[in-house]
Parts: sequence; C-alpha cells; structure tokens
Amino acid sequence: MASIKVHGLALSVPTCKVLACLYEKDLEFEFINVKMHEAEHKKPHFLSINPFGQIPGFQDGDLILFESRAITQYIARNYANNGTQLIPQDIKEAATVLTWIEVESHHFDPPASKLVYELCLKPKLGWGETDAAVVEQKEAELAKVVDIYEKKLAQSKYLGGESFSLADLLHIPAIGFLLETQTKELFESRPHVNAWVADIMARPAWAKVLALRK
Amino acid sequence: MASIKVHGLALSVPTCKVLACLYEKDLEFEFINVKMHEAEHKKPHFLSINPFGQIPGFQDGDLILFESRAITQYIARNYANNGTQLIPQDIKEAATVLTWIEVESHHFDPPASKLVYELCLKPKLGWGETDAAVVEQKEAELAKVVDIYEKKLAQSKYLGGESFSLADLLHIPAIGFLLETQTKELFESRPHVNAWVADIMARPAWAKVLALRK
Repeated sequence: MASIKVHGLALSVPTCKVLACLYEKDLEFEFINVKMHEAEHKKPHFLSINPFGQIPGFQDGDLILFESRAITQYIARNYANNGTQLIPQDIKEAATVLTWIEVESHHFDPPASKLVYELCLKPKLGWGETDAAVVEQKEAELAKVVDIYEKKLAQSKYLGGESFSLADLLHIPAIGFLLETQTKELFESRPHVNAWVADIMARPAWAKVLALRK
Repeated sequence: MASIKVHGLALSVPTCKVLACLYEKDLEFEFINVKMHEAEHKKPHFLSINPFGQIPGFQDGDLILFESRAITQYIARNYANNGTQLIPQDIKEAATVLTWIEVESHHFDPPASKLVYELCLKPKLGWGETDAAVVEQKEAELAKVVDIYEKKLAQSKYLGGESFSLADLLHIPAIGFLLETQTKELFESRPHVNAWVADIMARPAWAKVLALRK
C-alpha cells in the first residue's frame, strides 16, 4: 500500500493539481474516488480529513492535509529530491514562485474555475444550462489577467522565472479544460501566453493525469 | 535606509498582515504610504512592483514581491532566526500551518474582508451606506467557518498546532476591525475561538501596527 493517498475526483481541477504534482515527483500514490453524488465528502470519515468537506483530501502516513496549494507545496518541499524541482531551494527565488502561486489563487483561478464550471462541467455532467452572461463576465475578467501574464512571460519563460515551477503547474488543470472551449482564444491570441500554454500542457505528468481520468 | 520597504495603507487588511509579520520578526523597514485617492497604485511606478495594481507591494533589496501571503511567507523563511518563529522548520509541521494559511485565504478572509468593508471602512471613510443584506449573508458564511475553528481550537491551542504561527497572524488585522462591530458576537459566543482571539490580539507586534496606524 502506498503511504500517499489522494481523496478526490479525476474531473476536479483542485484534485488534478495534486495528481499532476505527484506525477511530476514520480511518487506512488493511491487514488481514492470520493463519491460526491452520495455526498461522501460531507460524511464523518471525509470530514475527519477536511472539516470543510471539500476535495481533495490528502494523507501521507500520519499526516493529513487539505487545500490543493498547501498539499502541493508540501509535496514539493518534502520530496525536493524526487523528479522535477517545483520550488527553488533559494529562498528569494522560491518567494517569486510563491507570489505567482498566490496570483493563480486569487486572480487566475476564480474566473477560470467559473468558466470550467459553465463551459465544461455543466454540459458534461448535466448540471444545467451554461449561463452566457456569466461566461462573458468571467472571460472579461480572465482577459485582464492573461494580459498581465503576457507581459510577465515576455520577461521570463515561466511565471516564477526561467524554470517550470509549481506556479505554472497549478494552472494546468483549468487550462486543460478551457482549451476545449471558446475561452482558448484568450490564450491563443497572446503569443507569449500561447507558447507557455503549449509548453506546460505538454508535460508528461499531465498526460498521466489524463490517462488516470479515463 | 532600511532594505525592506512596504508600500501600502495602514488601514488595509493585507498591508497590516505584512506589518504585523515584520514586527513579529523585529525587522526594520520603511513604510511608504500609497496615495490610493490619487490612484497611485495604478501608476507605472507601483505597477512595476505589483502589475495587478493592488497593495501591498514589498521590496527587500533587489527582491520585489506582492500578495500578502507570499510576502509574509518569504519574511518567515528568510528571517527564520529573527523574532518569533512563524513557520516551523519541520516540513510536516509547516505543511499543517500552510493548510491553515490556505483556510484563512479561501474560507475566512472572503466573508471577513467583506464585513470589514461594509461595517468599518464604508462608515469610517465615507464610502457609502452599509448594505445590511450583505452583512447578514457574510456573517452567516463566517459563522460556518468559525464553527469549524471552534472544533479545531478545542484540539490545539493555535490553528497550526501548539505554537502561534503565520496561520494565526494572518487573521489578526480583520479580527481587529470586526471586534469593533456587531460581528464580534461570532467570536465571543464560541469559547475556544474567544480564547484564541484574545490571545492573538494581545501580541505586542499588533500593538505596534496600531501605533503606526495612528
């Protein structure tokens, strides 16, 4: 039995952030599908992992964590010598990566995850009709964010510097969904963003997440 | 001249997170008041620090950072041996602290900052009338969060374990505002939360932030 366990859903953006991170680190893990349709995430066993009742939950031996950005930072630091280095050892370089992790968290993810919900999950899972007004508003918000990314990525190859890092990785799952929608135009119309998207989406670790999804 | 510069506003919750962290670490710094009423945060000089045009911005020598949670984690790690230890050296203990930093970011701060805006900043700065419906909704959201804090704080003295950490510190500025409002009842009615609030609000570092505000 693997000491690392991920409790989540393969279609969930936050769950896929953790899975992509584990594959970048070449770590073995057990994936436990949380039966959301049976509200398993609101039952005592899951609430003992995450009291907020949200996926993913994470275990590494006795350690229990939740919140995808905390889990992935733990993986990056605790398994620093496995696979891809995702957080630089240098504290100042790490601080820049952390700043762009916060940008993903507070600027990119809110509109991007809403667009994934409206344009992908609703039609795919029969959760209702896409709300065109929400899509228009969230695309406008996301456009402003990727305008800033375009300038940043003209200065450095990746968000956190010249090397791929956790800051880039955290964007992959939502972009993976959005490339199948009209929103892909926001990425394709900006040359530096477009090159960055092509680069990060070609990570072998992401192909493994997609394989697990099937 | 201090090598550390904080660009922000003494009434801003995110700015005060950084200031409280610097005082916990006994670090000297220069505080630069950003003239928000003149839209200084949207001008080229400030945008070169934070391209999203939000306070606080931070400089430590050549290093430029933004996003209060990234800045404070940098301070905690780069000045690990100064003042209060805010992130444990042990990676697993640090991961628990990081999880509760993410809880502050995604569960506590959204309703708490909205309540600070409605109940404190609007009346204090003449930004319009408090919206009672928003207050009711955000208090209901915050009540669910502090219910979970009450259970957590029955198990450990602080959110991240038995020692005060950055996870606790990040809550201080918003709670400082809310204790002057009707929302304080949410804290006072829960004994473990109430004891935790009394403890973290009594930090000498916070008294120094309040002194700087005057």
